[in-house]
Amino acid sequence: MSIIEVSSFAAGQWIAPGAGARNIASAITGDVIATAGNNALDVQAMLDYARTTGGPALRKMTFHDRARLLKALALHLREHRQALYDLSFDTGATQSDHMIDIDGGIGTMLVFASKGRREMPDGHVYLDGDVEQLSRTGSFLGQHICTPLQGVAVHINAFNFPVWGMLEKLAPTLLAGVPAIVKPATNSCYVTELAVKLMLDSGLLPAGALQLVSGGLGDMLDHLGMQDVVSFTGSAHTALKLRSNPVILENSIRFVAEQDSLNASILGPDAVPGTPEFDLFIKEVSREMTTKAGQKCTAVRRIIAPQSQTDAVIAALSARLAKTTIGDPRLESTRMGALVSNGQKQDVLEKAAILAQEAERVFGDPDNFTVDGADADKGAFVPPMLFHCADPDNAQRVHDTEAFGPVSTVMGYRDLDHAVALANRGQGSLVASVITHDAQVARTVAIGSGAYHGRLYFNNRDSMKESTGHGSPLPHMVHGGPGRAGGGEELGGVRGVKHYMQRTAIQGSPAILSAIGDTWVPGAPEIQGPAHPFTRKFGDLATGETLYTDPRIVTLDDIAHFANFTGDTFYAHMDEDAARRNPFFPGRVAHGYLLLSFAAGLFVEPNEGPVLANTGLDGLRFMKPVSAGDSIKVRLTVKKKTPRNDDYGEVRWHVTLTNQDDDMVAEYELLTMNAF
Amino acid sequence: MSIIEVSSFAAGQWIAPGAGARNIASAITGDVIATAGNNALDVQAMLDYARTTGGPALRKMTFHDRARLLKALALHLREHRQALYDLSFDTGATQSDHMIDIDGGIGTMLVFASKGRREMPDGHVYLDGDVEQLSRTGSFLGQHICTPLQGVAVHINAFNFPVWGMLEKLAPTLLAGVPAIVKPATNSCYVTELAVKLMLDSGLLPAGALQLVSGGLGDMLDHLGMQDVVSFTGSAHTALKLRSNPVILENSIRFVAEQDSLNASILGPDAVPGTPEFDLFIKEVSREMTTKAGQKCTAVRRIIAPQSQTDAVIAALSARLAKTTIGDPRLESTRMGALVSNGQKQDVLEKAAILAQEAERVFGDPDNFTVDGADADKGAFVPPMLFHCADPDNAQRVHDTEAFGPVSTVMGYRDLDHAVALANRGQGSLVASVITHDAQVARTVAIGSGAYHGRLYFNNRDSMKESTGHGSPLPHMVHGGPGRAGGGEELGGVRGVKHYMQRTAIQGSPAILSAIGDTWVPGAPEIQGPAHPFTRKFGDLATGETLYTDPRIVTLDDIAHFANFTGDTFYAHMDEDAARRNPFFPGRVAHGYLLLSFAAGLFVEPNEGPVLANTGLDGLRFMKPVSAGDSIKVRLTVKKKTPRNDDYGEVRWHVTLTNQDDDMVAEYELLTMNAF
Repeated sequence: MSIIEVSSFAAGQWIAPGAGARNIASAITGDVIATAGNNALDVQAMLDYARTTGGPALRKMTFHDRARLLKALALHLREHRQALYDLSFDTGATQSDHMIDIDGGIGTMLVFASKGRREMPDGHVYLDGDVEQLSRTGSFLGQHICTPLQGVAVHINAFNFPVWGMLEKLAPTLLAGVPAIVKPATNSCYVTELAVKLMLDSGLLPAGALQLVSGGLGDMLDHLGMQDVVSFTGSAHTALKLRSNPVILENSIRFVAEQDSLNASILGPDAVPGTPEFDLFIKEVSREMTTKAGQKCTAVRRIIAPQSQTDAVIAALSARLAKTTIGDPRLESTRMGALVSNGQKQDVLEKAAILAQEAERVFGDPDNFTVDGADADKGAFVPPMLFHCADPDNAQRVHDTEAFGPVSTVMGYRDLDHAVALANRGQGSLVASVITHDAQVARTVAIGSGAYHGRLYFNNRDSMKESTGHGSPLPHMVHGGPGRAGGGEELGGVRGVKHYMQRTAIQGSPAILSAIGDTWVPGAPEIQGPAHPFTRKFGDLATGETLYTDPRIVTLDDIAHFANFTGDTFYAHMDEDAARRNPFFPGRVAHGYLLLSFAAGLFVEPNEGPVLANTGLDGLRFMKPVSAGDSIKVRLTVKKKTPRNDDYGEVRWHVTLTNQDDDMVAEYELLTMNAF
Repeated sequence: MSIIEVSSFAAGQWIAPGAGARNIASAITGDVIATAGNNALDVQAMLDYARTTGGPALRKMTFHDRARLLKALALHLREHRQALYDLSFDTGATQSDHMIDIDGGIGTMLVFASKGRREMPDGHVYLDGDVEQLSRTGSFLGQHICTPLQGVAVHINAFNFPVWGMLEKLAPTLLAGVPAIVKPATNSCYVTELAVKLMLDSGLLPAGALQLVSGGLGDMLDHLGMQDVVSFTGSAHTALKLRSNPVILENSIRFVAEQDSLNASILGPDAVPGTPEFDLFIKEVSREMTTKAGQKCTAVRRIIAPQSQTDAVIAALSARLAKTTIGDPRLESTRMGALVSNGQKQDVLEKAAILAQEAERVFGDPDNFTVDGADADKGAFVPPMLFHCADPDNAQRVHDTEAFGPVSTVMGYRDLDHAVALANRGQGSLVASVITHDAQVARTVAIGSGAYHGRLYFNNRDSMKESTGHGSPLPHMVHGGPGRAGGGEELGGVRGVKHYMQRTAIQGSPAILSAIGDTWVPGAPEIQGPAHPFTRKFGDLATGETLYTDPRIVTLDDIAHFANFTGDTFYAHMDEDAARRNPFFPGRVAHGYLLLSFAAGLFVEPNEGPVLANTGLDGLRFMKPVSAGDSIKVRLTVKKKTPRNDDYGEVRWHVTLTNQDDDMVAEYELLTMNAF
């Protein structure tokens, strides 16, 4: 096999390795398989290219445009995933590991594509939260918006997930409208390079939206500015070095870090041997220890079980770990491959020796284990290793030493508060899990331990069939943790997109807020369209287009009739004396649903037209009761238009019902699906 | 007048100044009026006291408990505000300035009290966003929660607002459930000390919730941990020093900074002399220059006007500034008092000299101005100074030098893009304002400049009567800005409270999510109560309590009758052939509002009882059409209970309508007000 020359993609050019290139060895054979790095990379030109070419092109697109771009990129990668699988074995990963890395990365991109379409507007400004009433009459209002950062996102990734690690950062970045420069860890950068090549060759990306540094970043961070952002995944040591960069500190440059984490898994006090939860715990923990040979930032490092159950846990886990076939990941029988490099193997063994100062190794011997189909002395193989720490209160290393391999430590707890205290000894982690069927145990851990963990994963007999695994960050949920874990957040749906946008408080008149947010705000100008708005196609309707209806008097007969017809004979509608005793009503009043129904009767256009269906209603509030003899009339205004597919779009209407005195009696937002 | 000994409040004790105490001079007379600081302060004991006494006590309270605490504290301060006014004059502030500082601080606390009650639960866990569907059948779900940090908040404040500066940080901190150690700037710490004394003497605060450092912090930051947070307001220089602290960097300790900011105000191209906007601009800018003698982090430092209008702006501003009476702030005729200290005066004059390298001083002479009722040579008085920079593109100092006094620079722009570019030259600011009546101008600035500013303030003839001012951070809106402004965020309603909480992603079964969030989630266990839930008082109802109704068949007669009664004769209800042409309907279908009304008829308990009113409805979605002959039935479950006052509480019900095949046809949340 020839040696792969892993190139960088800089300012529109592929740059092959040159001076400063580093050799990369196969995790399986130890042979050099690739070379990467080029000291002559012009980092300032890369930043300029992203800022002046990629950024403007991405910002011209809407959130929906960029969501469609993500979907197309993901589907393109999926089509070519076999090439990525083939290349990934040399990182030590099995086919199951590839599914997490490659399919998981593609899936993450698809979720962001979907959330971008469903939860973000087809425009350039994302509205963050509701309008704030800053004035008595409503002539001056507040609203928060998010707009894309006008710089570049520098992504510095770890070696363990060369595809997912890139895509989980890239998807929210592109969706935000920000160009990225991706720097994978050198050990597995040949896989990332192929994924980048596939995306660039697809022709889908605007020029400047994506660049790649294979090898070192040089002094790129010294050239960053206040519109840039750095997202880092890796060791606490490197994170500290980078975040201490004076340029980053002086310019308040966003630095998102996801680093070391002594993740815990807690066996609930109820989950004794013989329960489905005990078996589930053993299964999840052993999977977390061995998947990707334990090289997962979310892997279980500390196994926290009731003191009375530690022997049972050690026995059951040891039995299960003993079945883990170790070997060449290309073999179908292999359950666990190699660490990414012999350097990493050395590091894991050193860390295991540190753990051994406080804990006894009860399973796995790095000097005596079987490797199938590969030379154990040449490849970066280690066996799963289980430790038992008998005195976790007086231990320190088991709580702060991350052996980034298939290594974990069992420790016993006296009661649930002790379990929480031990979990929190990690001083900040990405995830802690609790296997319990007792919801009150879950609540106690959440309240006691939430502040120390970015994610808390609960599982039991009710959820185990559909649960996603302790170790799997999901695009919907935030990934990151406080303290030792780096203090950063990634993913979490739109939250993750906001990391690449600036939130800005906007204050102004309703007309100005409407124009900025492309969303009509009460008090903003109303547009009189050429016809009933229900007769107008989605594309023709203007935001702010308004219909005023005639009034309709609500009679006592109407109220009585509606009550009898629907069966809603609540006393406030039926019994004058009882209604008067109610603190909110002056006497018999109309049903809220009668008002809604009459309102529809006033504004609906009966004939076939572009409005296809009323799909829902949000934020209905009844403000003032309507008595017999009062009249109601309706104002209906286009608040927001959102395309849903090639045929229909959703129209959100702002609706107010007022009485004969122009007092508001009800307010809501109506949703209709309208033809293009 | 005797010299005030400004004490610290540490670990439950008032500690008078001792070794290391510093003299504080009156801004008006230059005489020493106070002394503060004590090198022997035991910072570790203070941190321990907050963490082990204050934190647990605050966390035992609910968000509503803490909101009530804030309200009581605010009302107590309001009752004693005259003492704060009296003491504040020596900081150089006028009575108008006191209103901003003291009344503004109290008002901020009241807004957080109100938002805590209205927007947060009466519980211990804040739900951040909706439930995420992580599985096909819904047995495994996601939800984000926020829980209080378990450490201490260290607040380091600026000298300019000794009361507001403390309260705007303290209100969200206490509401979150986190104890605070407040360190005011020494120059005006005697005012803060009195406000702290008033709050402590009120007896409202749990022990350990609030401590005060008058004078230096010592090495407190070196003792912080990953559950602590530092919120800093002050100079970029000090911020950089503090955020570079190795303990802060190594432990990923949250560091929120609000620092230098070259805030801009832009005169819109439409706002020519003669328009209401031109006059408004002159008024707002001159007010921002002179309020608090320009010692406001949000003051206008750069006045960006169309090139053709710069002469008119300079003339009008100069005329207005000429009317600013400078003098002893105790005099009613005084419009502008002194800077806080002669040291600060020296600094402002030095910065003004730097600006003079690039801009011409066109108004105000620090060597020649009148001071009423005080000795200009002894007090820290300076006049308003206006500069004009003729070539802002080639200037640098006018964009990066913050003279923290009544100093501002006029610069011209060629077109709106140029105005945006000039505003962005500040490299990150707290606020930029635009005075324009053209909503498209507002939109262009928001999109072009949003990423550079924490707040954008728009004003014009429509909003000027109720607008709150360029320079006023509001508790509802985020305050902070990117880059030079520090990259932090404060305030912004609940957003500001979250800075003192940890967001944690929760994954688990519906039962577990329900228990953690104290909010029923579909799929969680349903409780069969002893009677119809509408007959049960607020306090007796359990979250999860559920009613199932009998089914009701919807007939074609019902549909026709409802159409004719309400007037909603939409073709999908009336015309079989037309309905079939609609892509969503199988033929004539029931009105959505008919279903809602029948549902109410099925679940409403008609007699007088604890349910007082249906106040609203949220998130209604119609999932499947109902044809004549189909039946519907209702499931109604208590989702969330929120007390609203001493008599009533709001019950949020989760409602599903299903048909004869148990397919869901509609889902919504119903709100009722229930008696206790």
